[in-house]
Amino acid sequence: MINQIDVFSSAHSFKEEDIRDKAVVMIDVLRASSTMVTALQNGAKGIIAVEDMDEASKISHNLDAKSFMMSGEKNGVTIDGYDLGNSPLEHTEDVVNGKTIMLNTTNGTKAIRRCSLADQIIVGSFLNLDAIVEYLQNLDEEVLLVCAGWRGRLSLEDILCAGNIIYELCEGDLPNEARDGAKVAFGLYEKFGDDIENSIKSSNYAVRLKDIVSEDDLEYCCQRSITDILPALKEGIITDINGKKQ
Amino acid sequence: MINQIDVFSSAHSFKEEDIRDKAVVMIDVLRASSTMVTALQNGAKGIIAVEDMDEASKISHNLDAKSFMMSGEKNGVTIDGYDLGNSPLEHTEDVVNGKTIMLNTTNGTKAIRRCSLADQIIVGSFLNLDAIVEYLQNLDEEVLLVCAGWRGRLSLEDILCAGNIIYELCEGDLPNEARDGAKVAFGLYEKFGDDIENSIKSSNYAVRLKDIVSEDDLEYCCQRSITDILPALKEGIITDINGKKQ
Repeated sequence: MINQIDVFSSAHSFKEEDIRDKAVVMIDVLRASSTMVTALQNGAKGIIAVEDMDEASKISHNLDAKSFMMSGEKNGVTIDGYDLGNSPLEHTEDVVNGKTIMLNTTNGTKAIRRCSLADQIIVGSFLNLDAIVEYLQNLDEEVLLVCAGWRGRLSLEDILCAGNIIYELCEGDLPNEARDGAKVAFGLYEKFGDDIENSIKSSNYAVRLKDIVSEDDLEYCCQRSITDILPALKEGIITDINGKKQ
Repeated sequence: MINQIDVFSSAHSFKEEDIRDKAVVMIDVLRASSTMVTALQNGAKGIIAVEDMDEASKISHNLDAKSFMMSGEKNGVTIDGYDLGNSPLEHTEDVVNGKTIMLNTTNGTKAIRRCSLADQIIVGSFLNLDAIVEYLQNLDEEVLLVCAGWRGRLSLEDILCAGNIIYELCEGDLPNEARDGAKVAFGLYEKFGDDIENSIKSSNYAVRLKDIVSEDDLEYCCQRSITDILPALKEGIITDINGKKQ
């Protein structure tokens, strides 16, 4: 099945039509994917990915104020008036258990929106890597690993995570027939995969947001397979389809 | 200077503003870059990269019919009524010597247009790789290697060429501070750089166009540093600034 997998390097690196009827894994390691996985792990009922503040406000008017929280960042900083930023470490069990999280982030939620024609969308990160790999191993359809990236550009941490997924799926032996995007991600993972934490600490993201995003956040997001949570978008809400917490 | 270099994975993977006042190397190995380098090597006076057939027609009305040729392809096939396709092997000395070439291709010429805010644009391929490396070694400004890609997606051959340039510039030892895009390209080159021809023969491009683009074309475009031609865009025309043939 490895030859049915491609990697798109950013949310702008494909036409929406290219996604139609395919399975998508959306990867935004720093930090939307990691935050979604963590919030669900800590008992959040679901996550609604919103594209901007207007949309968040509109949806929130139809919900009971006690049932949801607003999380989000713009260029790494918590949005004024929101309950939480986009740090997974803020999404503790105390805070999110039983709540629906409305999440508004710079690149990750936009990437999900650009995949709206997909057959299914799941959310991948290092934190739930094994769960993603296991899910894909049993899937018989074309798969696109969509890296969120940053302003259209690729992000090291997202391609590295995609490369790790590819590496596990082919057990380190990528066939010649693999797609271009899979080869690029695999090459990066072979080069930097033995020290993900240090690679990510020297990434453009870490350098750009060094005064805003804590080292604890980076270290947390680099941990591999600490949970089996498998977030999937169904009817506008992202919930865990592995269901371990339910 | 290696830390001043980034790689953009496709013509859609940046905002035009991100290019402002930077030096760009546009890379479209299959085949716009390779064709431009070859045409200039074979004595073409210059190349005008046009975005579509309308523009080609408009410009050609102002030129002496004997002074130029129209080259171009749409999805790999020669455009109806054009003198030549986008095969470098068609651009022989007999055919192009002394002529201006109007080149219209699917991704390469569009990539050049998206870089219009750059301080300078040069054209890179495997064919003129050493000339590019030497030029960049002496350049004291921020450099973007812009891979043309395909319909917004990355193309193996372009990232591989960018990775080869990065590899030569850092003599195989990429510093930790290198940009994300440089790391991705370097990783791919480390993985596949020892057999560029076979890597490119199994690329998405080669598979997609296997009935249209000859193996001779692919093999030709994989040759490293067979010429010192250094195409650069000045006032709308791409000419050789190394000037070896003049």
